[in-house]
Formats: sequence, structure tokens, C-alpha cells
Amino acid sequence: MERELIRWLRERLPPHPRLLLGPGDDAAVLDMAQTTQCVVTVDMLTDGVDFQLGEIDPRRAGRKALAANLSDLAAMAARPLAGVVALCLPRQGGMELAVALCEGMLPLAERYKLAIAGGDVNSWDGPAAVSITLVGETTERGPLRRGGARPGDRIVVTGAFGGSILGRHLDFEPRVAEALELHGNYELHAGIDASDGLSLDLSHICEESGCGAAIDAGAVPVADDARRLAERRGDGSTPLDHALADGEDFELILAVPPEEARRMTAEQPLDVPITDIGEFIDGAGLWLAEPRGGRRPLVPRGWEHRL
Amino acid sequence: MERELIRWLRERLPPHPRLLLGPGDDAAVLDMAQTTQCVVTVDMLTDGVDFQLGEIDPRRAGRKALAANLSDLAAMAARPLAGVVALCLPRQGGMELAVALCEGMLPLAERYKLAIAGGDVNSWDGPAAVSITLVGETTERGPLRRGGARPGDRIVVTGAFGGSILGRHLDFEPRVAEALELHGNYELHAGIDASDGLSLDLSHICEESGCGAAIDAGAVPVADDARRLAERRGDGSTPLDHALADGEDFELILAVPPEEARRMTAEQPLDVPITDIGEFIDGAGLWLAEPRGGRRPLVPRGWEHRL
Repeated sequence: MERELIRWLRERLPPHPRLLLGPGDDAAVLDMAQTTQCVVTVDMLTDGVDFQLGEIDPRRAGRKALAANLSDLAAMAARPLAGVVALCLPRQGGMELAVALCEGMLPLAERYKLAIAGGDVNSWDGPAAVSITLVGETTERGPLRRGGARPGDRIVVTGAFGGSILGRHLDFEPRVAEALELHGNYELHAGIDASDGLSLDLSHICEESGCGAAIDAGAVPVADDARRLAERRGDGSTPLDHALADGEDFELILAVPPEEARRMTAEQPLDVPITDIGEFIDGAGLWLAEPRGGRRPLVPRGWEHRL
Repeated sequence: MERELIRWLRERLPPHPRLLLGPGDDAAVLDMAQTTQCVVTVDMLTDGVDFQLGEIDPRRAGRKALAANLSDLAAMAARPLAGVVALCLPRQGGMELAVALCEGMLPLAERYKLAIAGGDVNSWDGPAAVSITLVGETTERGPLRRGGARPGDRIVVTGAFGGSILGRHLDFEPRVAEALELHGNYELHAGIDASDGLSLDLSHICEESGCGAAIDAGAVPVADDARRLAERRGDGSTPLDHALADGEDFELILAVPPEEARRMTAEQPLDVPITDIGEFIDGAGLWLAEPRGGRRPLVPRGWEHRL
């Protein structure tokens, strides 16, 4: 199956200026002559956890697997360069599934000028797993890290949060272009993509930066999906709860100096809204500042490996 | 579990001169200022296919997963640089298994000066899967590819073949240093590592190079394990059959101009034997030349995804 898939891929992959040797050898070869720093990220998605192959077009699963990885490049404000794809497939219907997963990836790869450089295909008696590793390159401003937030920095986010399980977790657009735009034109101290959940991912920035954060409850952009999900669940959880904890929003969470945050939110340079939702503070922990005053501790929530 | 494993890893990973940012962020950052070309390879190994976790120390499985990937860098004659590890683990005992897998990798990483740069950890209701992606860099002689063999080139191999299932498939030494040594000091036209099986991997070189190959049956270095396995199986298969088709020998198969092959086999510059086992020929297909004269077609055999 592997040779067959390589042949299929080779017929469909556009040439890429940085890919000197593509699928079919023991490794791909990339031109790095102009690259000072590269970033490497891997994310493995599995059937039954990150998507349900029995319920969706497998192209959407393939697209999601690549998009989630592109979102990690966005979190570093890195330009996509190349990716390799390792597939573990059920023995029955493996080739068709592999083709469908790749068909979901190819348009996204082309859109972000990412070379599909190689891969590995395995069959087994388990569910499908898709592991993608991406190589990107930093811009002249270097990588955007989690560890640079300082007390007083504003918490700035793109887009809206919550309820992604209703469909957005599959069809989201990774904020690659947005991260490059913001990193290039504003001073950013730290960044992460919201995969685990707004509060949990914010806590990752805090942990790496050695500070805390206070979110303005009234400022969080709550997605319509979060409202729909709260209503549908009817379990007492509010749309804000969903926005803070659902995860897989794949939006950017940034630490931005106050002056720059004001400029950024005023200029709104992206197609997606940019919102100031609070500030990084001295000390540890997350807090939720209520619109009517007062603040309460916020337990970071989200899922490490889940839908 | 993921944060816990990252903490565990961070305490154990030695600093690496090329790793600017290691595990714990959305991506690792590598210094590529001195690198002209990098190679990228991925290989996913799974419980029940590539190893049996119920029967072996999981450290050996972790070691094998990394060694198999290092063997792909060897096949390109590339220097190891950094790797990322994606794990899919059963929900029960996942953290202990993750630690054991990593414990199997770390000494090998240190030996080959490979930075463990990051990873991804997932839990699910399936068996364990280990996907490793390695980044290496080519030397000033460029990558060793599959596609450069020419009719008249000699087929030169390191080590001995067959019967790796008796244990060598877990504990082999990837031929990283050997490939760099040979690529640096001799003219090599093509190369591959023997993972699928000597005859099948040789056919991959032929396919990419547009030629055929004739193996001298009497020249193939047959491992003692191949003899033991043939005896144990008692199914009529000969030690040579095992040497040609078992796979997971992780030795080098090289296409070498005749004059260089003579020099190489005379000089024997490695700790492991180098053997000339035949020649690349015009036309397609593999042939087996019998010691008593005459040759017969050889069907490439091996497994694409198996022990």
C-alpha cells in the first residue's frame, strides 16, 4: 500500500521550491540555505478521540490533522515549510482511507505553501491514527514563545471561543497568516494557540512565563456555537464556561504590552476580530474578573487529549 | 500526562548546541544557520506489529523506534540533528509506558548527538503507537539517494542478513556512523537501509534508478540468526531465503562504482564487514546468480509493515 500511495501522491503534489527530494526515498531533502532557525512540531490525531471516522467524511479528518499542526506553527509565528505524514490504518479499506485523508490535506498544504515531503504508512488491527510533523521557519523577528508574558501585558485573542465540537473543530482555519501579520507589525511577548481550552492554554503561557492572568469575564468573545451548545446541553453550564474550557478553537492567545494592545485592537488589522480579554498579573494562577466587580479564582479547564 | 512527561523529560535531556527551544512549547526551535540542506524522515511503529509490548521490556521498543528512524538517516548519509516523538498510548499505564519508551530512546539519542526536541502524547483505547520524526543534515557531499544506481555498479552491503526476528530487529545498531564514513571516503551512487528485506529494498533502489540487479547467491552474507531460524522453522526455507526476505536487518545496501567497490572491500574501513554481493544491470527486475552458474529471476520479498 505504501508504494501505491506514494505513486498516487507524486502525481498530485505540486513542485515546491524548497523541496529538493520528495516522497519515495528514505527521507525528504529540504533546501535550508536561507533559513536561520527552523521550528518542528508534531501532533498525532486518532479516530475516536479527535474525530469519528464513522460519522464524517475522512477528508475532514485529514484536513483537521494538518490544520491542527499548522495551528502550532501559527502559535510560534513561523512560516510553514514542509510536513511528513505517518498513518496507521485499519487493514480493511486502508488505501481508500489513506487517499481520502490525503485529499483533505492537499488543498490546505497548497494554501499555506507547505510541501508534503514524505511519510510512512502502516496497517494494523487498531483504529486510524494520523501523525503529522511540520517544519517551519521563523521570521527575522524570531519565534513567538509561550514564556515571554510579563505582568501588565494584555491578554489578546483572535476570534471567538467555545462550542467547537459542533463542527468548528474540524473546519477551522489555522491562524498562520494572522500570526505572521501580528508578529511582524506589533510587539508580542508570548503566544499559544487555543487547542486545549482558552483557560488551560492561558495557564500554559502563565506557567512558562512565571506569572498569573486575570480574564475579564465580560470581555471574552463567546462563539455562537458556545451558546448553542450550552442551550443544547442544558446542564447549567453557561456559554462563557464553554468558551473558557471547550478547546479546539485554534485561535491565538497572545501576551501584548498595553500600548501595543491598544493599537492592535484599535487598528483591527485582521479579517477576524482581535479582542483584549484581560491582563497578565504578578503571582500564579488564573482569575476571572466579574463585570460587576470582584474576581474569583478560575480553575484552568480543558482536555489534554480529546475532542 | 503530557505536562508530566515533559517535566520528566526536561530533567533528563542534556543541553544540545543546536536546540534553541526544547519540549514544552508549541514547537521546538533549531539553529539551522550552518545547514544548507536538511533531511526529514518519519517512521511509526506499533504494538503487535513492530514489537510485542506484552513480551519485551518496553525500553527495547522505544529504542527500536528511534533506531529504525536513525537507520533512515543513515540511508541518506545524513547527520542526526533532532527528533520529535508522538505517542499514542493505552489509557491504562500510559505514563509508565511513556517513561519506559523514552528511557529506551535517550541513550541512543545521546550516542548519536540527536536532540529530543519535542513531542505529543495521546491516550486512547487502542494499542501503543510510536511515531518518530527525525531531522538530519546532509554533509558537503549531499544526500545519498535511492535513485543513482547505474548498470555496472556493484551491490555492496554492510553486515549480515536474515533471522532478525530472533532479537536483532530490536537491538540492532543503526549504521549512521558507517554511512557517514563510507559517503565521506568513497564514491557512492545510491543507498538504502534494509528494513523491508534485502531483495525488496534492493528492488526499491532499482525502481528509483531505472535498472535491475543480479545478486550472487553465494556472496550474500547470511546471519547466524538466518541459519537458526531456517532450522527452527523446518519449512523448507533456506538460510539464504531468510537473508533475502526477512527484513529489519537495518544494514546498508549501496550502489558503488566497481573500482570503488574493490577499494572499499579491500580496505574494510568499518568495524562491520563490507561485502560485494552482485551488480546492478541493464533492464528491470532482480536476478539470483547461482554459484554453479546460471541465474534465475528473484521475486523481491519482504514485508512492508510487519515484524
